[in-house]
Amino acid sequence: MVGGGRGAFIGGVHRIAAAMDNEIELVCGAFSSSAEKSRLSGQDLYLPENRAYGSFEEMIREEKKLPEGERMDFVSIVTPNHLHFPPAKLALENGFPVICDKPLAFSLAEAKELRDIVNKSGLPFALTHNYTGYPMVKEARERIKRGDLGEIRKIVVQYPQGWLTTFLEASGQKQASWRTDPARSGAAGAMGDIGTHAENLAEYITGLQITELCADLSIMVPGRKLDDDGNVLLRFNNGARGVLIASQISAGEENSLRIHIYGTLGGMEWHQMRPNSLILRWANGPIEIIRTGVGQLSAAAQAAARIPAGHPEGYLEAFANIYHNFARTVKAFLQGKEADPIHLDFPTAEDGVRGMAFIEAVVASGKSDQKWHTFDY
Amino acid sequence: MVGGGRGAFIGGVHRIAAAMDNEIELVCGAFSSSAEKSRLSGQDLYLPENRAYGSFEEMIREEKKLPEGERMDFVSIVTPNHLHFPPAKLALENGFPVICDKPLAFSLAEAKELRDIVNKSGLPFALTHNYTGYPMVKEARERIKRGDLGEIRKIVVQYPQGWLTTFLEASGQKQASWRTDPARSGAAGAMGDIGTHAENLAEYITGLQITELCADLSIMVPGRKLDDDGNVLLRFNNGARGVLIASQISAGEENSLRIHIYGTLGGMEWHQMRPNSLILRWANGPIEIIRTGVGQLSAAAQAAARIPAGHPEGYLEAFANIYHNFARTVKAFLQGKEADPIHLDFPTAEDGVRGMAFIEAVVASGKSDQKWHTFDY
Amino acid sequence: MVGGGRGAFIGGVHRIAAAMDNEIELVCGAFSSSAEKSRLSGQDLYLPENRAYGSFEEMIREEKKLPEGERMDFVSIVTPNHLHFPPAKLALENGFPVICDKPLAFSLAEAKELRDIVNKSGLPFALTHNYTGYPMVKEARERIKRGDLGEIRKIVVQYPQGWLTTFLEASGQKQASWRTDPARSGAAGAMGDIGTHAENLAEYITGLQITELCADLSIMVPGRKLDDDGNVLLRFNNGARGVLIASQISAGEENSLRIHIYGTLGGMEWHQMRPNSLILRWANGPIEIIRTGVGQLSAAAQAAARIPAGHPEGYLEAFANIYHNFARTVKAFLQGKEADPIHLDFPTAEDGVRGMAFIEAVVASGKSDQKWHTFDY
Amino acid sequence: MVGGGRGAFIGGVHRIAAAMDNEIELVCGAFSSSAEKSRLSGQDLYLPENRAYGSFEEMIREEKKLPEGERMDFVSIVTPNHLHFPPAKLALENGFPVICDKPLAFSLAEAKELRDIVNKSGLPFALTHNYTGYPMVKEARERIKRGDLGEIRKIVVQYPQGWLTTFLEASGQKQASWRTDPARSGAAGAMGDIGTHAENLAEYITGLQITELCADLSIMVPGRKLDDDGNVLLRFNNGARGVLIASQISAGEENSLRIHIYGTLGGMEWHQMRPNSLILRWANGPIEIIRTGVGQLSAAAQAAARIPAGHPEGYLEAFANIYHNFARTVKAFLQGKEADPIHLDFPTAEDGVRGMAFIEAVVASGKSDQKWHTFDY
Repeated sequence: MVGGGRGAFIGGVHRIAAAMDNEIELVCGAFSSSAEKSRLSGQDLYLPENRAYGSFEEMIREEKKLPEGERMDFVSIVTPNHLHFPPAKLALENGFPVICDKPLAFSLAEAKELRDIVNKSGLPFALTHNYTGYPMVKEARERIKRGDLGEIRKIVVQYPQGWLTTFLEASGQKQASWRTDPARSGAAGAMGDIGTHAENLAEYITGLQITELCADLSIMVPGRKLDDDGNVLLRFNNGARGVLIASQISAGEENSLRIHIYGTLGGMEWHQMRPNSLILRWANGPIEIIRTGVGQLSAAAQAAARIPAGHPEGYLEAFANIYHNFARTVKAFLQGKEADPIHLDFPTAEDGVRGMAFIEAVVASGKSDQKWHTFDY
Repeated sequence: MVGGGRGAFIGGVHRIAAAMDNEIELVCGAFSSSAEKSRLSGQDLYLPENRAYGSFEEMIREEKKLPEGERMDFVSIVTPNHLHFPPAKLALENGFPVICDKPLAFSLAEAKELRDIVNKSGLPFALTHNYTGYPMVKEARERIKRGDLGEIRKIVVQYPQGWLTTFLEASGQKQASWRTDPARSGAAGAMGDIGTHAENLAEYITGLQITELCADLSIMVPGRKLDDDGNVLLRFNNGARGVLIASQISAGEENSLRIHIYGTLGGMEWHQMRPNSLILRWANGPIEIIRTGVGQLSAAAQAAARIPAGHPEGYLEAFANIYHNFARTVKAFLQGKEADPIHLDFPTAEDGVRGMAFIEAVVASGKSDQKWHTFDY
Repeated sequence: MVGGGRGAFIGGVHRIAAAMDNEIELVCGAFSSSAEKSRLSGQDLYLPENRAYGSFEEMIREEKKLPEGERMDFVSIVTPNHLHFPPAKLALENGFPVICDKPLAFSLAEAKELRDIVNKSGLPFALTHNYTGYPMVKEARERIKRGDLGEIRKIVVQYPQGWLTTFLEASGQKQASWRTDPARSGAAGAMGDIGTHAENLAEYITGLQITELCADLSIMVPGRKLDDDGNVLLRFNNGARGVLIASQISAGEENSLRIHIYGTLGGMEWHQMRPNSLILRWANGPIEIIRTGVGQLSAAAQAAARIPAGHPEGYLEAFANIYHNFARTVKAFLQGKEADPIHLDFPTAEDGVRGMAFIEAVVASGKSDQKWHTFDY
Repeated sequence: MVGGGRGAFIGGVHRIAAAMDNEIELVCGAFSSSAEKSRLSGQDLYLPENRAYGSFEEMIREEKKLPEGERMDFVSIVTPNHLHFPPAKLALENGFPVICDKPLAFSLAEAKELRDIVNKSGLPFALTHNYTGYPMVKEARERIKRGDLGEIRKIVVQYPQGWLTTFLEASGQKQASWRTDPARSGAAGAMGDIGTHAENLAEYITGLQITELCADLSIMVPGRKLDDDGNVLLRFNNGARGVLIASQISAGEENSLRIHIYGTLGGMEWHQMRPNSLILRWANGPIEIIRTGVGQLSAAAQAAARIPAGHPEGYLEAFANIYHNFARTVKAFLQGKEADPIHLDFPTAEDGVRGMAFIEAVVASGKSDQKWHTFDY
């Protein structure tokens, strides 16, 4: 693991997600840019002292020296955005598969370069767009793929949060500090952090691609340096229209990511905060609520659930599904086998490039007087 | 009553709303452009034969001849949009107060003319933007007015319907026929029918005004002549940003009008389909659900509820609240008294002009490559 | 109308419900046991002075003298429980149909006597168990009747309120005073007021009858004279088991009447506070939500809805459905015709007798050490 | 681990719950009464061959021989009910702490004996009444403890499931087979499996104890040997009244465990299927929804949450909270330290004895004509 030392948030999530299925064991880490902090974090995590490294470069170099079977099987990158590319590149170039937090990189150019490195390496690579790990998200995708809703006409995806309603970064809170800092986050704030999740979710479920957008980005909190609120009109490659909203100043909201999709035959609705229900609406019949674990679900949705219906599975389980699929794919790779197609269902470097392209387009549009901006990628 | 004959929808709603509080009695009508149909409709409604008139001109002329106390006290107009202006003008010019279905008129120019006639007449005039009749909408407005949410930063108002998902107008269905016909509906379809409700609701609750907008309007159903789906970016006069969505091709949706409002201190949410709850969110405390009839509510909300909490009040009661306030205002007027300020809480001709200005702006923006369109009014 | 003068609650509800469909006009009343108060109430309601009577006896006597077509068509009784029987009896014996608030009478014996008078008179008689007026309650009944759920095994009906959590009757509040007074309410408090609604709802929807019960009734508020909380085990005539809960000390609850019904094939759920949804659950398929106004509904449910789906219809509309059906039945009766069977769907004196038998059984059981009490009727 | 081999359900849940926090590692097991099946299960779980034992006796004997630090730290028992006592006793007598699935034992007598063994041993012992692991259940308990609701008057706890609506045991399904078999489940079916969860939840949250009960138990599915549906009237030691419902024939229900609690000052509601919300109701103010991770929560609730608000935590996290607290307590024990009081928040053998006493009382009451049955324990 690279990053995720004391005081970090997402690193702990990755560790829980990785541990959940008793398949992945944390064996080493470079948990901080401070060697001392990395060492202490290693202690917290019951690691042997010699495998809590002072830097990711050291980790990759030393682990590579260990015999196969003893060295780490893959690298998990959970650093701020500007530190995704360097360890990912180095790991891949040394033959280690990589699972990386999103967004893929710091800029579109960097993302494309990383994608090319991944492709060249032939190694498994995953990006943790974790919301696509939910069983009902997978079910939504399968149902749209088989045509249940007809031709898709409209998509509204919203991700309101309220945690940056005040000038929190002034307090030194770790998350707020780097998320609002262009030097560590990149060109976008809310759009980079959660807008990309919304974009990825919409494209994952519908199988469509955004082709044009028109964005109104704001900095609502005085003194902030990156967008904390944004509203975007969308046009998709099949002619569908849509709206994407990402906001971190929607006071009182937790993580209310939700999506509404309408086709010629019916409508669909999913909420991250009630993730085990997928709501379907029809012109002339009852509303249907598909539930995790109930009835005839797609193989992808079934594989993504662990316990009987009515026992809520949440964010960590969805995150673990990304890890599970990736781990199975790495295992097959290490054994020289083809991965089971069902295990290839995790976000890729290609998805990451789309995410970075979205960020660049949305930021450019936000500054422009031109109505439509091609989502060029 | 003008309009609302056999087969019409909104006329029946107006009659129920008017009757509900035992204050208003239907005494006459010109229910249809066909004199015969008007006569038959009069029979259905237990009217004496001589007061089911063949035209609104006849009705106004004949009723005016009746002695005070016997003649109608005001005129209710429930015709398609292109027939709002003529009877409203004639009634006002003959000294009858008017309550009119929305939108106010067929065009912005007509709306302004009618507003001027209203102002000149000094007569009570109401526009039935009925959603503002809900008790919790009034409570929302009062709470924002007194500053509970702080400065408003963001407003998202959505009105998805699904009833025009197919090419329903081809079937001859009465509602679908005139709503999708530019000659009877005006320049906009979904935006005129329900977009204006959304615009009115957002401005009523927040007390803000839209100043700029950027619209993406679509005709999703082949052969249709007016927009059936639209997404609009909004900017308000205090710097707040927002999104307005109005759609009649959101398959499976009923009348899912809802609004989310965020300020510097908290957030607020209201759904027309669960109208007796007003949801408040705060950064560091519990979500609060304000309920019709429970606890310390504003005078306006209290006056708008009829029965104890937990006995749901719905659309007809909200509609009746517009009629009730208007009737009280007319009664005061007829008695030469000042209306109680609480009874003046109903939409006016001025609101109607704003609604028409919104329609014209949104249609112009929909056709334009320019990003922002001034909401000039 | 008998009762419902100034300060009363349910009288106003009856008047709104009666007026809603423009079919029924209030023409006279004996609104209070005080002649003066009755006169003033008549004024409030725009009645001519001579038809606001000083007593129900006077009203019935004087109205009977009026020519047919001018006199009242039926009598609506909205007094406290101990004053249901006398005016109902007198009205029926003078040839006036009656619609009466529930429970039917003050005691089972009185109820049976009234039922016999109704039967002998051949006149239309309705009891306002208003919750059966909701469209989705009718839909539930029809679906169970046609076997959708299979054989019914379990019924849980709950009616928690919180308004008597404190010793409210000490404050002189009118409702609280008579509801908790054995001399005006009868043998039961919460069980009589709302327990009977729950009992009626369960039997109406399922078509089953309670045959045995085991009750635990409490007076939770010191000083109170009648039960304010009760839990009852139920056994039904087909072998189904159930639970009935009625409480007026469930602090913070409004009118949260709800019912869950399970059969061999599926389950069903309805909540009075979200009345336009009927929830169906199945072993191996999606949850289905049937909505007022959407899709293929039974004739009874369709006839009970006034406006398009998604425009919430509530308590007053459900109450008005009882009035509407009763008015249509009275109209047919006055015209010497058979009533349309769909209009006969309102609660009868027989239902009222069952309600009183339930009250007596539940009170007896509450005092007894014997486990099961036959619901003998 | 004892039990939890191939095809078992709850063993897998225990393994995920134990792994989640990177604190507990599965080191050995006797996964099945068949030595071969145990060996294969060990392989599935990546265990070294010599630590997949053929029986729990062998496991305890052999592990004890290993040096401290290498041998297992505690034993997890996930067998059917009749096989809880033997391994628990043997483990405790050999100095191993035990965490055991519920109910504690096969009979009340056995449970009391085991409780005495636990007490005598001085070893940590936990029972996985996992629903008490939810953060909002802990918050509910703390709020009642500090008096927010006043004196508790009424408790309604319901646990409907639908999975035994049909005669599933005839199909050979593993869960259904042993759950409905008196030789493996004990005296009760639904009451033992889920009724005890409901009883434990009610007593855990309120701090009250059931003193009397009156039960109506049924076998609804022909051929079944144990109760599959039950309704119970409850009386508590402070005079509060209540109802407990446990059912496995509530067709279409998943795991809809929920509890409503009413005191003199307010009401409270929690649903296992929406576990991150705790609903509070008050007489004269808004409904409040307390959310996992938002605002001022009790230390117990805060310690039980892993991720930011709005990222749903579910059943596995709640289960893991039991393991986490137990593991910390065991760790302190092994280090000869006092456990942090916050880590002692897990169900004990004493809770298990109450659960068995509840089962015996409820079964006895179900067969009796006597109304009230003392919950003697």
